[in-house]
Amino acid sequence: MASSTSPAAKIIDGKAIAQEIRNEIAKEVQSLSQSHNKVPGLAVVIVGSRKDSQTYVSTKRKACAEVGIRSFDIDLAEDVSESDVIARVHELNADPDVHGILVQLPLPKHINEERVLSEISIEKDVDGFHPLNIGKLAMKGREPLFSPCTPKGCLELLSRSGITIKGKNAVVVGRSNIVGLPVSLLLLKADATVTIVHSHTRDTDRIIREADIIIAAAGQAHMIKGDWIKPGAAVIDVGTNAVDDPSRKSGYRLVGDVDFQEASKVAGWLTPVPGGVGPMTVAMLLKNTLDGAKKKIVQ
Amino acid sequence: MASSTSPAAKIIDGKAIAQEIRNEIAKEVQSLSQSHNKVPGLAVVIVGSRKDSQTYVSTKRKACAEVGIRSFDIDLAEDVSESDVIARVHELNADPDVHGILVQLPLPKHINEERVLSEISIEKDVDGFHPLNIGKLAMKGREPLFSPCTPKGCLELLSRSGITIKGKNAVVVGRSNIVGLPVSLLLLKADATVTIVHSHTRDTDRIIREADIIIAAAGQAHMIKGDWIKPGAAVIDVGTNAVDDPSRKSGYRLVGDVDFQEASKVAGWLTPVPGGVGPMTVAMLLKNTLDGAKKKIVQ
Repeated sequence: MASSTSPAAKIIDGKAIAQEIRNEIAKEVQSLSQSHNKVPGLAVVIVGSRKDSQTYVSTKRKACAEVGIRSFDIDLAEDVSESDVIARVHELNADPDVHGILVQLPLPKHINEERVLSEISIEKDVDGFHPLNIGKLAMKGREPLFSPCTPKGCLELLSRSGITIKGKNAVVVGRSNIVGLPVSLLLLKADATVTIVHSHTRDTDRIIREADIIIAAAGQAHMIKGDWIKPGAAVIDVGTNAVDDPSRKSGYRLVGDVDFQEASKVAGWLTPVPGGVGPMTVAMLLKNTLDGAKKKIVQ
Repeated sequence: MASSTSPAAKIIDGKAIAQEIRNEIAKEVQSLSQSHNKVPGLAVVIVGSRKDSQTYVSTKRKACAEVGIRSFDIDLAEDVSESDVIARVHELNADPDVHGILVQLPLPKHINEERVLSEISIEKDVDGFHPLNIGKLAMKGREPLFSPCTPKGCLELLSRSGITIKGKNAVVVGRSNIVGLPVSLLLLKADATVTIVHSHTRDTDRIIREADIIIAAAGQAHMIKGDWIKPGAAVIDVGTNAVDDPSRKSGYRLVGDVDFQEASKVAGWLTPVPGGVGPMTVAMLLKNTLDGAKKKIVQ
């Protein structure tokens, strides 16, 4: 009885929204090309031949091609020296046709990631991970040149679903540099009341139950149960966890940090995994590259 | 009856703790002077003759003298040009005897504060307000060269009162760049569960009632009532608000953001205003200057 009266959550179709954004970007790239005879350029640097990294990089390069962004492919051998990687980054910093630089992580162990990333020009840091960009993201009255892609994608999913953020109680689960921390800062800038919970939090479920907006980025399969969710809350699930599934050929399937079946009966809005936040990350990378190019080309 | 059974809050004596820290700094300065024949140097730049700024600057310079830090006094006329102020900052950046640079705010309206502050060398940014320092403060696995003084003072008051932060629910009231935001980041780094409430928050009192640690930095006299406080909570009051008081010669007195009388019956620990956080800010400025000097002198 109870379940029949509770309305089902609206499923936020990240794939469709990302496609919509990619279409908008493609139009802007075309008009930039017509008016200034220039297109945005994204350099994607990959070191070695990790299968997962190869897949991510190929997705990003294909996405560039689709919207008309020129992709610069820098494929370096597994045993390349750190100084050679840095030298390539410097070349890309100096190249006026490159508006964004992305170094696919992780790098092989003999290379210091922090050192390599800090060599990327702040004006081409389309990943938005430079501490100067994070600092400006955190500070009132300052604006970063680029916001990190996945957090930006989460806010875009909310706004394109008609969910207002201002004055809402938002709970972010996880505090990674890549998602949890920057998404908290973005939500705070959008005037939400923000709580960040993490592995040392004592009463996670009680805190989550007060949230109008939940951003789940803990990396724990099905951690967030249906009865942790306030009826009508908006739930953005950033988790991508592989769980065993003998019924699949691969032997596994991907699930989020939220128990989707349970949550879909309680939440007001909910993103699926896969097909929720994932496609938005690439779309925001394209958007950041376009924005970086516009700053240089349109003056 | 009820009030007789509830234990009174322990009042945290910020003046005494700050003096303790200043004594520790004086000892370190003396040993640095003996071992390396050098002392830390702090340049305090003031533009114009605002009464309040003059008072703050004179307090800071006296505090330097007391612990043996050399103070460089840069007093500029109200009508000095922005480029002249920046030129002085560049001189101080280059001076090997200066380990910290502080520009007293506010600056006269014809001078762009952000532009002046961004010219201070990050290695001498003892106020800790540079976006690069804030970014590193925010990020896991990164450490800023300097943390902002008032937020650092709040955490020092907690730790020297024997209050553990890890796993506690901390609520920060206010999100200014100077206090609320950076103290939230420091608490998060110390493994608290952090909630930031502000002017757009809807149920401030309910949220504060869940806090084990309250940092009040809203700038609203007596905003936080006794029944907003969980019994036993630690309350750090950063507010310094002038309220009318005809019984005083000055016609006003300073009060905090917390209703002290009410709070003292409920809280476990409580800082007074004045004499709580205030003296800690100057002590932390001296500590940052010492730390900056040690990085340069002891190698």
